[in-house]
Amino acid sequence: MDHRGRLRRLQAALPDNKLDFLLVTHLPNIRYLSGFTGSAAALLVGERGATLFTDGRYIAQARAEVKNARIAIGSKAPPLAAADQLTRQRRSPPARLLGIEAESLTVGMRDRVAAALRGRVRVRSAPPLVERARMVKDASEIQLLREAVGLGASLFRVAREKIWPGASEVEVAAAMEYEARQQGAEGTSFPTIIASGPRSAVVHGRASRARIPRRGFVVCDFGVILAGYCSDRTRTVHVGPPSKEARDGYMTVLEAQQAAIAAVRPGVTAAEVDGVAREVLRKRKLSRYFTHSTGHGLGLEIHEAPRLAAQQAQQLKPGMVVTIEPGVYVPGKWGVRIEDVVVVTSSGCEVLMPTEKELVII
Amino acid sequence: MDHRGRLRRLQAALPDNKLDFLLVTHLPNIRYLSGFTGSAAALLVGERGATLFTDGRYIAQARAEVKNARIAIGSKAPPLAAADQLTRQRRSPPARLLGIEAESLTVGMRDRVAAALRGRVRVRSAPPLVERARMVKDASEIQLLREAVGLGASLFRVAREKIWPGASEVEVAAAMEYEARQQGAEGTSFPTIIASGPRSAVVHGRASRARIPRRGFVVCDFGVILAGYCSDRTRTVHVGPPSKEARDGYMTVLEAQQAAIAAVRPGVTAAEVDGVAREVLRKRKLSRYFTHSTGHGLGLEIHEAPRLAAQQAQQLKPGMVVTIEPGVYVPGKWGVRIEDVVVVTSSGCEVLMPTEKELVII
Repeated sequence: MDHRGRLRRLQAALPDNKLDFLLVTHLPNIRYLSGFTGSAAALLVGERGATLFTDGRYIAQARAEVKNARIAIGSKAPPLAAADQLTRQRRSPPARLLGIEAESLTVGMRDRVAAALRGRVRVRSAPPLVERARMVKDASEIQLLREAVGLGASLFRVAREKIWPGASEVEVAAAMEYEARQQGAEGTSFPTIIASGPRSAVVHGRASRARIPRRGFVVCDFGVILAGYCSDRTRTVHVGPPSKEARDGYMTVLEAQQAAIAAVRPGVTAAEVDGVAREVLRKRKLSRYFTHSTGHGLGLEIHEAPRLAAQQAQQLKPGMVVTIEPGVYVPGKWGVRIEDVVVVTSSGCEVLMPTEKELVII
Repeated sequence: MDHRGRLRRLQAALPDNKLDFLLVTHLPNIRYLSGFTGSAAALLVGERGATLFTDGRYIAQARAEVKNARIAIGSKAPPLAAADQLTRQRRSPPARLLGIEAESLTVGMRDRVAAALRGRVRVRSAPPLVERARMVKDASEIQLLREAVGLGASLFRVAREKIWPGASEVEVAAAMEYEARQQGAEGTSFPTIIASGPRSAVVHGRASRARIPRRGFVVCDFGVILAGYCSDRTRTVHVGPPSKEARDGYMTVLEAQQAAIAAVRPGVTAAEVDGVAREVLRKRKLSRYFTHSTGHGLGLEIHEAPRLAAQQAQQLKPGMVVTIEPGVYVPGKWGVRIEDVVVVTSSGCEVLMPTEKELVII
């Protein structure tokens, strides 16, 4: 991983943003910049260097993982240890500015950091500099995402074996998660969704004790974390013979998904891709049942920028990795979602681990 | 669950804290007060009522779960929807105050809430009113914790079956997690720790690909979430014949744990319980290897108040539920931790699901 290059580019961006320092507190950002994977840390980045603050539990781990920052071990909360270091530095020039990550730092911690700085350094919310950099993945990240998506995709085989009338949703999820662990996943990237029968219309239908009915859709939305990177994939199967409405619904969602995938290329906006999926559903009078956005970026986190939704002006660029996941949910009746992860390429996109998406009937 | 009583007591506490409203944004607090278990919500509590703000994914779920608050569905971020409602109310008396949960609200969201209020309502960080109430569990919560701890305890049998020289740590963890899922757990309350051989000295030694050696300790620290409540338990076993140093170390940690459990009763401070465990280790010159606190509260979250550590003046009260988990970690050599969950009673404490703690040799 190119931690040195990432940190250097961030350091180079500080003057343009009128910041003397950036206090990185969002753990995925710290991992991205330094390689540190512990659960307690702050990374203080200045133009000429960076220091990782953590606690005694992580001495050996920090030394093994972090090669591009000084390491400071202490017993204080890491952001406060960083503030202390800033105040200890020799007399500062006036108007020094410390940027904070406003979308992850809590109000309480910001207040404690400001108090520790005793007016010597001013605190200001910084733009999401690291999140912006993280939107475009480099080759080694794409390789890790490819491996995570590959592992995730292999779990659908387990789902197909376990989905049966009378089986509980949570039994299916447990078998998939066990297989993921056996294959080396650190865990799931979100609570596994197995939503059967009328529950298939519940967008976030976590696997429950409900039993799979003799007839109806089963939405299977599952993801793993492998070497820190997240996968995300949805397949919807039908138990028993589908009605015409169900079959048509499935085919329409699939058409919407394929149209959106075909629309992904550099220069198109996130909103345009979302609009393509929505338009397919609108023509079949199903768009009012599509109640979420078409997709989202993913990487070290399961939800990252960009968001593929209305009014999102972000242009897609080569190296961005996003989900394409339209769905239709008719309350109390049925739901279908089909989701893949795609990488934006120089001329279009590549679907990671493409597989058949014809309607599977169990 | 007594959501009505909890909300009423919070409402009664607002005037004493000079607040007209409290904006509850920490999801476990929202669940505690209203029963809502979705992943996006804000609960606006005023003296005369409360409103739960969530989005379209959660219409049916909010109606089913929430009986003591109005439900408002919208597409804005829930805290901003709450701010909008406050500004829509008829002309406010001057100096109205909205309390926020400073330890969970981000700086970015606080700034957006303040902007949406357009100066009509002032924003102030509130004391941790809900966290304080949550420290003392009621009978129905203790019952749920009892069930969670019972399920968690049953997983140790799986660990004993799977721990064997040559097995990977992650295989042991996967088998335990699978069993937990089969028994109905929603998930693990933290990443399962299976730390073997020299890795047993790593306090947070998540199960890795490392293989269990022919001789040495294996620290097994595992927890489940069942009906929303967390369990937490550690047992340490030895593979192969233990050295005298290892056996003595184990017996000393066990003695420290039993002494700390015996010290738990109403009126004693969190620091005093911590001191009792530390003193046992000090006498055997092992206290410098005990690098964390003696325990923590748990409930809807795996780490809650009170914290059993030096300088923590919080007195224990009947109904508090805490872990007692001293450990000794000799870097690069060996580590032992023994942990139980106890409920403070009127005269002492009850260990949930007590089991044998003699050294198990595999």
